[in-house]
Amino acid sequence: MKHARSAFFTPGSDFTIEDVPLSPPGRGEVRIAIGFCGICGTDQHIFHGAMAHRLGDRRVLGHEASGVIQAIGEGVDDFSLGDRVVVRPLSSCGTCPACKAGHTHVCQNLKFLGIDTDGGFSEAWTVPAETVHHLPEGISLKSAALVEPTAVACHDVRRGRVAPGEDVLVIGGGPIGILVAIAAREAGARVTVSEINDSRLALIGKLGFDAINPSRDDVAATMMEKTGGKGADVVFEVSGAQAGLNATTAVAAVRGRIVVVAIYPEAPSIEMFQYFWKELELIGARVYEAEDYDRAIAMIADGKVDAAALITDVHPLDHIGAAFAGLDGSGAAMKTLIEVSGELA
Amino acid sequence: MKHARSAFFTPGSDFTIEDVPLSPPGRGEVRIAIGFCGICGTDQHIFHGAMAHRLGDRRVLGHEASGVIQAIGEGVDDFSLGDRVVVRPLSSCGTCPACKAGHTHVCQNLKFLGIDTDGGFSEAWTVPAETVHHLPEGISLKSAALVEPTAVACHDVRRGRVAPGEDVLVIGGGPIGILVAIAAREAGARVTVSEINDSRLALIGKLGFDAINPSRDDVAATMMEKTGGKGADVVFEVSGAQAGLNATTAVAAVRGRIVVVAIYPEAPSIEMFQYFWKELELIGARVYEAEDYDRAIAMIADGKVDAAALITDVHPLDHIGAAFAGLDGSGAAMKTLIEVSGELA
Ligand SMILES: [Zn+2]
Ligand SMILES: [Zn+2]
Ligand SMILES: [Zn+2]
Ligand SMILES: [Zn+2]
Repeated sequence: MKHARSAFFTPGSDFTIEDVPLSPPGRGEVRIAIGFCGICGTDQHIFHGAMAHRLGDRRVLGHEASGVIQAIGEGVDDFSLGDRVVVRPLSSCGTCPACKAGHTHVCQNLKFLGIDTDGGFSEAWTVPAETVHHLPEGISLKSAALVEPTAVACHDVRRGRVAPGEDVLVIGGGPIGILVAIAAREAGARVTVSEINDSRLALIGKLGFDAINPSRDDVAATMMEKTGGKGADVVFEVSGAQAGLNATTAVAAVRGRIVVVAIYPEAPSIEMFQYFWKELELIGARVYEAEDYDRAIAMIADGKVDAAALITDVHPLDHIGAAFAGLDGSGAAMKTLIEVSGELA
Repeated sequence: MKHARSAFFTPGSDFTIEDVPLSPPGRGEVRIAIGFCGICGTDQHIFHGAMAHRLGDRRVLGHEASGVIQAIGEGVDDFSLGDRVVVRPLSSCGTCPACKAGHTHVCQNLKFLGIDTDGGFSEAWTVPAETVHHLPEGISLKSAALVEPTAVACHDVRRGRVAPGEDVLVIGGGPIGILVAIAAREAGARVTVSEINDSRLALIGKLGFDAINPSRDDVAATMMEKTGGKGADVVFEVSGAQAGLNATTAVAAVRGRIVVVAIYPEAPSIEMFQYFWKELELIGARVYEAEDYDRAIAMIADGKVDAAALITDVHPLDHIGAAFAGLDGSGAAMKTLIEVSGELA
């Protein structure tokens, strides 16, 4: 293999597939033959025009990738050719105050691989070895493409300090909302999901969660009734809507924690009086740390994440443009993968 | 003593001083001869029309009170006649989910003594014995009138998890802001106060704090420079202004904590993107717990709170109406006390 077929996205235009000549990985790097790479909500925003200033003239997107080690740079001891892996697509500077305080995942100069650098919609992806996690036996490369979004959910749940026996409400039952619900259940919580889309509600029920449809029922009243007047100990706001944010403070218990997972188009308003009255906490969460990856890999390997139910579409690399254009937001699609090379084991 | 002179406030009207016949304290209660009682910002808001629905036809306000035990009800073992004390003016229900979880100070049915019941602008105040804290030797009743607002500050600092060596910014240098600054310094932080009023800036400097005047200097840029590009580990928003709230997210370090102390007239907007980007936390804080009272009493007894500098006015009970009306918000006045009976020791 001397070339890798890669999908380049040009801001303001579309994808083009090109053969890129391979070069050996540098010191501390590994090159990964990519099996599958998922399409993230962030990728979709980029496809529709966001973050163009971070992309340069053109960019290989994709950061939810699984594959096998294809080449190993000098100074890398932890990997062998053929190892099955996933990438934690973060590159920190190591010298800023956040890095020095140990918070490298929120490095003040963080680079996100697959946005600030070329990514995984390519037959080969070269990355720093320290960003790579091994996969255990019994987890397919296809399922492993869910590790990155599952790690987001694990990080959100850890930031929310979810404890066994707590009542959790997830507002918004898209792919991340459902993964947050699964991670919260694994942390021992009783989880309810608020969602309005019927096909998503059906999946939420199939996965064993209680659901509230806010177009039919009052979310706060329902949760208060379910919890004997206490409210939700932890609320995850995944909808990105002002109405969802308003529900967080209404539904939260005294000393409740509100983890904001969604990104909002503008600075939203919040019911600050409720933060005072109930001593609430609002907690920001961004990406993940290494331990979130370990947890996500274990959850998928143990069958806690129903990959077959969550992966609703798989398209070949050649059809990446059509795959992006086809994500119309109907809510029926959960996770769409690009099959770059398929199962490589 | 058969009667107690008491200042009744009638919503929509003014104060009237009346002699109220004394009755013996009930089971579990003590009656306190009040020495001094401070005027709280909340009392001022009530004076200007707020919270009328909580007051009934008329109410004895006042909850920042110090005094000596004058009568003891049945079943009270911890107090003797003449003991010097302060009141933690909270009454919780004991049965709601918040109380059952141990958060009695944010009880879902909390009564605030001196607002929901009659309070300390009276020669005698009867309260549950469990709300009363002993004063040590060497703390005057006048200084002890600062215990309640100092306990607010101790609670805010504890909610913010202020740790030794951290950089703290307090936005707003009124009485509570200055007490928060003192409590944060006692917790080991390097404290800067942002304030625009010149007489308050003079006091802030006199108490040994760095100051930033946001009408002259950019708060975020100044704090970033002072902290080598890190920002403030903990920010206390005490101004109640949207501009102050906007500064909190700009000035906060990665993983910074923002404690909202002020109350806002409307639901404010917040820079939610910064909560995501820097993994910030917004923390609500309300009143205090018993340990905050213990801490506040110790800080005042140890001379950490400069009572002489903070108590800028003392008025007799007869002049309470004029004292309230005279609080014009010029910023020169810090804490105004009503001398109900003076030092009673
Ligand atoms: Zn993603
Ligand atoms: Zn860094
Ligand atoms: Zn007060
Ligand atoms: Zn209660």
